[in-house]
Amino acid sequence: MRIALLGGTGDIGEGLALRFAHDTDHEILIGSRDPEKARNAVEGYEAILEERDVEASIKGFTNEMAADRADVAVLSVPPYYAGDTVDAVAEKLDEDTILVTPAVGMKGDEDGMHYHPPSAGSVTELVASRAPDEVPVVGAFHNLAAGKLSNLDREIDLDTLVVGEGAAKETVTSLASEIDGLRVLDAGPLANAAEVESITPLVINIARHNEELHDVGVKFQ
Amino acid sequence: MRIALLGGTGDIGEGLALRFAHDTDHEILIGSRDPEKARNAVEGYEAILEERDVEASIKGFTNEMAADRADVAVLSVPPYYAGDTVDAVAEKLDEDTILVTPAVGMKGDEDGMHYHPPSAGSVTELVASRAPDEVPVVGAFHNLAAGKLSNLDREIDLDTLVVGEGAAKETVTSLASEIDGLRVLDAGPLANAAEVESITPLVINIARHNEELHDVGVKFQ
Repeated sequence: MRIALLGGTGDIGEGLALRFAHDTDHEILIGSRDPEKARNAVEGYEAILEERDVEASIKGFTNEMAADRADVAVLSVPPYYAGDTVDAVAEKLDEDTILVTPAVGMKGDEDGMHYHPPSAGSVTELVASRAPDEVPVVGAFHNLAAGKLSNLDREIDLDTLVVGEGAAKETVTSLASEIDGLRVLDAGPLANAAEVESITPLVINIARHNEELHDVGVKFQ
Repeated sequence: MRIALLGGTGDIGEGLALRFAHDTDHEILIGSRDPEKARNAVEGYEAILEERDVEASIKGFTNEMAADRADVAVLSVPPYYAGDTVDAVAEKLDEDTILVTPAVGMKGDEDGMHYHPPSAGSVTELVASRAPDEVPVVGAFHNLAAGKLSNLDREIDLDTLVVGEGAAKETVTSLASEIDGLRVLDAGPLANAAEVESITPLVINIARHNEELHDVGVKFQ
């Protein structure tokens, strides 16, 4: 499968690129608004993988080109760019490209991080409302600490929650399950995304207040 | 310590009563609007504990009488009664009684359960705003599945998050840690309660959509 990481030069993009490249045989496409930046990131990822004798297929593109080639496109951008990035690649998406969104809206104050969704109810639903109607949208990878994901020395042993419908959700479930140590749980339809996204500010607060926990993720049991 | 479970005839009250009675030596006071109902619940709890040869001190009272005697009073009532229950016992609380709130505001629709906080931002903050100023309020026990908690045959192995300040939070942390298998994590001040409460609708959605998971709780790692 061809997995595009749009905005794949950022921290969650790096983590997903390294894990997919390390644990699977899928083709990884790093997208960026600046293709030069994408290619530089690819060089960095390949260097990390070569140290581990992993030969991976990773290539750098503009976001549009990466989306055009992708079977699954992951919107690995900050939440405030999510809508604009969907608009920028919309023409390259169709009913055969699954758009995956991991972004979360948050706001910090002196007390800690707080969930701060857009008026659509969640970033996941915002992305769904901005994507062309025929493009299947699935929420996933919301609550993975990028620091843990991008450090291949660290075992994951975490859950990720998917929201969405039908075959697209099944494909993303199966794909995410290929990352070692990641268990994929179904949290229902897109309308349930807000409660999934809310975990992200919570785990940041937990990391801040509990010395023994860093790059915190979650397991349900 | 004397632990009052106000509304302690309900499911979370039952679970906390049984676990505290089974795992600790604290005195448990079950409160209810109807003291007869409290005493009936106590008989049921004692029967369960006797089967396990556990001799526990549990007594039934009105909520007001239970609060009056308590060092720690847990508001084990549904969220829509939380404010009224605080009002009802307010005169019996003082700076030496810690008021603990585990309730969560939720609303269900065809998609699943959704977080539905009161205008105070969270039920935890609502309770804090309704309690007399000198009474320390701590949020805890929000995300424990009552079905698992009240079945002493089941191991817990879960986290609970506390929000609050100072010595009251330390006392509740230490008290909750006495329940076998429960790890207590600090999620910061009361203002961070919404993200803690949001987990409850999420775990209900997860239990609904994942066959292998029932009475779901959470661990952070």
